[in-house]
Amino acid sequence: MELWYTEFQTKNLGLTTRIKETLFAGKSKFQEVAVVESLEFGRMLVLDGVFQTSVFDEFIYHEMIAHVPLFSHPNPRKVLIIGGGDGGTVREVVKHQSIEKAEMVEIDGMVVDVCKKYLPEISIALNGNHPKLELKIGDGIKHMQQAENLYDVIIVDCSDPIGPGEGLFTRAFYKDVYKALKPDGLFVQQTESPFYHQELVKRLHQDISSLFPIIRLYLASIPLYPGGLHCFTIGSKQYDPTEADVSRIPATFGTRYHNVNIQKSCFALPNFVQELIK
Amino acid sequence: MELWYTEFQTKNLGLTTRIKETLFAGKSKFQEVAVVESLEFGRMLVLDGVFQTSVFDEFIYHEMIAHVPLFSHPNPRKVLIIGGGDGGTVREVVKHQSIEKAEMVEIDGMVVDVCKKYLPEISIALNGNHPKLELKIGDGIKHMQQAENLYDVIIVDCSDPIGPGEGLFTRAFYKDVYKALKPDGLFVQQTESPFYHQELVKRLHQDISSLFPIIRLYLASIPLYPGGLHCFTIGSKQYDPTEADVSRIPATFGTRYHNVNIQKSCFALPNFVQELIK
Repeated sequence: MELWYTEFQTKNLGLTTRIKETLFAGKSKFQEVAVVESLEFGRMLVLDGVFQTSVFDEFIYHEMIAHVPLFSHPNPRKVLIIGGGDGGTVREVVKHQSIEKAEMVEIDGMVVDVCKKYLPEISIALNGNHPKLELKIGDGIKHMQQAENLYDVIIVDCSDPIGPGEGLFTRAFYKDVYKALKPDGLFVQQTESPFYHQELVKRLHQDISSLFPIIRLYLASIPLYPGGLHCFTIGSKQYDPTEADVSRIPATFGTRYHNVNIQKSCFALPNFVQELIK
Repeated sequence: MELWYTEFQTKNLGLTTRIKETLFAGKSKFQEVAVVESLEFGRMLVLDGVFQTSVFDEFIYHEMIAHVPLFSHPNPRKVLIIGGGDGGTVREVVKHQSIEKAEMVEIDGMVVDVCKKYLPEISIALNGNHPKLELKIGDGIKHMQQAENLYDVIIVDCSDPIGPGEGLFTRAFYKDVYKALKPDGLFVQQTESPFYHQELVKRLHQDISSLFPIIRLYLASIPLYPGGLHCFTIGSKQYDPTEADVSRIPATFGTRYHNVNIQKSCFALPNFVQELIK
């Protein structure tokens, strides 16, 4: 008997993948948490039925949400990650020599525990005591409300805007992000699919540009996510990511997707995406 | 009752989409031809069970297979399209003022007839008598064998390398393409997914670079195709597509994906794609 798992990406569209076995299934205070072993994507984290990340393609999302903003800032020292419970983002963040401290606030301790156990390639920076990492299990929204003038870069590595991630897609949250950043700080957030979440992309762009003088959207190709193309949005107080000094990007940085050409070209938007954010 | 149609993109991966109705289903000499009306992608052409194109996202594939090579050549006048029976590629080709003649050789007349009837937005250049178009129903491989020093640009707009498209993915065919091109000509072919057809991408790259002095791979995000990211390969006798004069690309060209920044950035390859073609 073959087992197939289907994620309905929209009401009328699904991605279906053959499953070898379910390695973990539980229910936390916030959501249903599962790890399945798939034949195409390898082990995958699934939250509330939505594919979050897979051993096959996680490098793309994690490299692109970390390195693009970090190379947009000339000297990022203090970084905050909201969410990111699988550990992939912080694994990339701590590759940057300039980083002195990476704080991470993840709401769901079960996600961290499960990823440490079943996705060690992704969660490697969470396993052991990384000297630069300060991991807190808690509410990212509350953390942001209390933070002021603290961070060079904030990375909002959240799930979809339903369930525990919902409050991270609001103007009130972006106002707190602005306050929590230093005077030359910048932040990034994953902002869903330019094909299937066009109203959301539009609204977030309006919210963020009403607060930050510089806003830039960039794209990355991620097969696990709806349409295979994913948006990230940077709000910046001072530095324009499209004018970053890319000469300081090392030729070999251990990345499998990101490189100096990708850092520049990811900001080139197809016309239909430009239309969305006009 | 809900109808869903699933394309198995690999042995272990499927894209499943809700169908309103089947508008056409037939069997030609070469393949099974169907047009279905889907809720997510609108009307779609399906050949031998594989999604070929949809009203929702066809603009991406057709703009990118036509405009990137045509803007890589300083003065394309005579163009040959192999395949392309839905008409989307020639619709884009004839937008170029410099084009004097666009020949098109499609093996399957049923595809042309069905697309003219059910996909008029895509096949618009096939409907009516476009003065620059010369459409021939016939074998592209044989046509290429007989052509010599004729074309500025050849566009191989084929289906997957199984069924009628198989012979278009061989070194023997590329040798004929080389012969059919003028001394400064170039050609492009859709070369499948960098995620799921890595051995094919590698082999084609070797075959084409053994014949053409200049070879460049570029990428476009197409949600209907496996992984949402698609390869195109250009073999060129003289002009390097990455050094094309992009200043002659009009600011408004009626495109929804392609623009001057996309023309340049589509050649920026993620590290894992660079590795494939090293």
